[in-house]
Amino acid sequence: MIATGAVPICPDLPGADAVAVCGVSTLQSGIELRRILDSGGAKRGVVVGGGYIGLEMAEALVRRGLEVSLIDRSPEVMGTLDDDMGQLVSQTLRDFGVTLYLEEALTGFETKGGNVTGVVTDKRSLPVDIVVLGLGVRPNTALATAAGIPLGEKGSIQVNGRMETGMAGIWAAGDCAESFHLVSRRPFYIALGTVANRQGRVAGINLGGGYATFPGVVGTAVTKICQVEVARTGLQEKELGMLGIEWASAVIKSRTKAGYYPGAGEITVKVLAEKGSGRLLGGQIVGMEGSAKRIDTLATCLHAGFTVEEMINLDLGYAPPFSPVWDPVVTAAREVVKKL
Amino acid sequence: MIATGAVPICPDLPGADAVAVCGVSTLQSGIELRRILDSGGAKRGVVVGGGYIGLEMAEALVRRGLEVSLIDRSPEVMGTLDDDMGQLVSQTLRDFGVTLYLEEALTGFETKGGNVTGVVTDKRSLPVDIVVLGLGVRPNTALATAAGIPLGEKGSIQVNGRMETGMAGIWAAGDCAESFHLVSRRPFYIALGTVANRQGRVAGINLGGGYATFPGVVGTAVTKICQVEVARTGLQEKELGMLGIEWASAVIKSRTKAGYYPGAGEITVKVLAEKGSGRLLGGQIVGMEGSAKRIDTLATCLHAGFTVEEMINLDLGYAPPFSPVWDPVVTAAREVVKKL
Repeated sequence: MIATGAVPICPDLPGADAVAVCGVSTLQSGIELRRILDSGGAKRGVVVGGGYIGLEMAEALVRRGLEVSLIDRSPEVMGTLDDDMGQLVSQTLRDFGVTLYLEEALTGFETKGGNVTGVVTDKRSLPVDIVVLGLGVRPNTALATAAGIPLGEKGSIQVNGRMETGMAGIWAAGDCAESFHLVSRRPFYIALGTVANRQGRVAGINLGGGYATFPGVVGTAVTKICQVEVARTGLQEKELGMLGIEWASAVIKSRTKAGYYPGAGEITVKVLAEKGSGRLLGGQIVGMEGSAKRIDTLATCLHAGFTVEEMINLDLGYAPPFSPVWDPVVTAAREVVKKL
Repeated sequence: MIATGAVPICPDLPGADAVAVCGVSTLQSGIELRRILDSGGAKRGVVVGGGYIGLEMAEALVRRGLEVSLIDRSPEVMGTLDDDMGQLVSQTLRDFGVTLYLEEALTGFETKGGNVTGVVTDKRSLPVDIVVLGLGVRPNTALATAAGIPLGEKGSIQVNGRMETGMAGIWAAGDCAESFHLVSRRPFYIALGTVANRQGRVAGINLGGGYATFPGVVGTAVTKICQVEVARTGLQEKELGMLGIEWASAVIKSRTKAGYYPGAGEITVKVLAEKGSGRLLGGQIVGMEGSAKRIDTLATCLHAGFTVEEMINLDLGYAPPFSPVWDPVVTAAREVVKKL
């Protein structure tokens, strides 16, 4: 059973080994980061990478009183969202006090006496006391590779539906292993705790002499940045373009509760559906408290292979403390239907 | 187009027409109730009926400072839940200060000079200043009956999938009209705003010369009693018994967020599945903030006809502010699988 997980991507750039250039992937790296912050000397922080880890760390550094900048190569942070939805998250960070340098590439670090003093991009140099790297992860397959086990999508360990590798009797699960995407119907790599848990359960049953299969994933992920909840599932526009799937999309704004109910917050929902067939392809949500877990309805619809027309008559829960009469995800589905 | 709604059930008992015996179904009845409370003379309130309206009114009267009792014929309030889940809601009301008289039937009112002074059950007499009736509704079909239009389930107006009645060219939608239950595959009557909205949309499209069908409902409903969220979907045990469907069930306790996350509250989930086939039949949720809308995942699974085995691999959203790694509804599904 190979469960070697993933390793954080570390850029092969001068100065990347300097003190206070921190990845955040293990308990030890968190302790180290905390130690530097607790020493009080760090006033200016730069986060490299606008994914889940990068955004959570940017928020945390602001809360610790640092002056924080974030660098990302994409036009908006949170590249797992389409740009129009990612823009809402970028604005949330700016409103919270994070300076964003988007469409900029990290080119190196400046150091002095083994300590980092600056972050260099293709457009500028930023003086800095601490750098946090959130550049994503790659599957940790050193052991599998040495054993001659075949690799698949993004270098993850190829597995069949029972989580068995290409070498009989060797199993793999978690961030080192491949998944299957139920919407694209193709192999897919995603490093998330939920997927690792479900894969591990299947591998364990099979290792123990039972029989279980892992059908695959639809790419659901949720996070919280400051007070804003962010969620996504299915395929996003750039994936659909690469797959040659034609789509229609709609973005709607609604409220998390009945409009007149105390605490009703804004929610923005984007839904993507296949041109012609109307098959749901994916969805994205950015909004206030009560927004994120609505993605589960869209994810379940993806598992079911529902069209957006079928979504209109979903019998979802309504009461003023929880939702408008038409749930925002259904309102978005109704809008897409008009564009098929 | 017949959209005559529903009328509150009013008991044919002596004194039911006395001042301060209030149903709550229209804006006017709400204004009248408010007027009596604002006059300050009411100290003791009795609510008859432990459904959504009864519980919301009991809470409201306690918040207005009244000494409140609630009478219901069932062993627990909220009869749309199984008793083991309804018990959690009964306890919530008791903790909030409502005295419950369960398994008691209303037999009459005591009045003096046209004002209500007591509520009489088969077990006791309660002195009272104001009585609120929450005994449910029946479809308002006076017009349809006079026109000779056929009635169906619980006296609601029979309609086909396009919301057309048995009389060609006459349509019906909302609380006066019949629905179809997608789990029992039988006609069903449910008076809820969401269902009325979806039925009205379908009837309107057809009236306007278009073509739309209303597939049916799965019986989803949510409410909030004090700080506790309550949700249900699908068939409950007493319905399954009447339908001759054999079932297995599981009740699990989990948390609304990761256990270590601030504000994680308790959530109890019950899932019912068909013996042998494993087909999901229904689910019920009682818990703290963030509990109720999880019913949407179960409702969508009912629309999809999923088995509880299929639910185990649902790719739902996880992050510590929103859920444990295994969403409570999936944890409940996993437990039922063991009992099929």
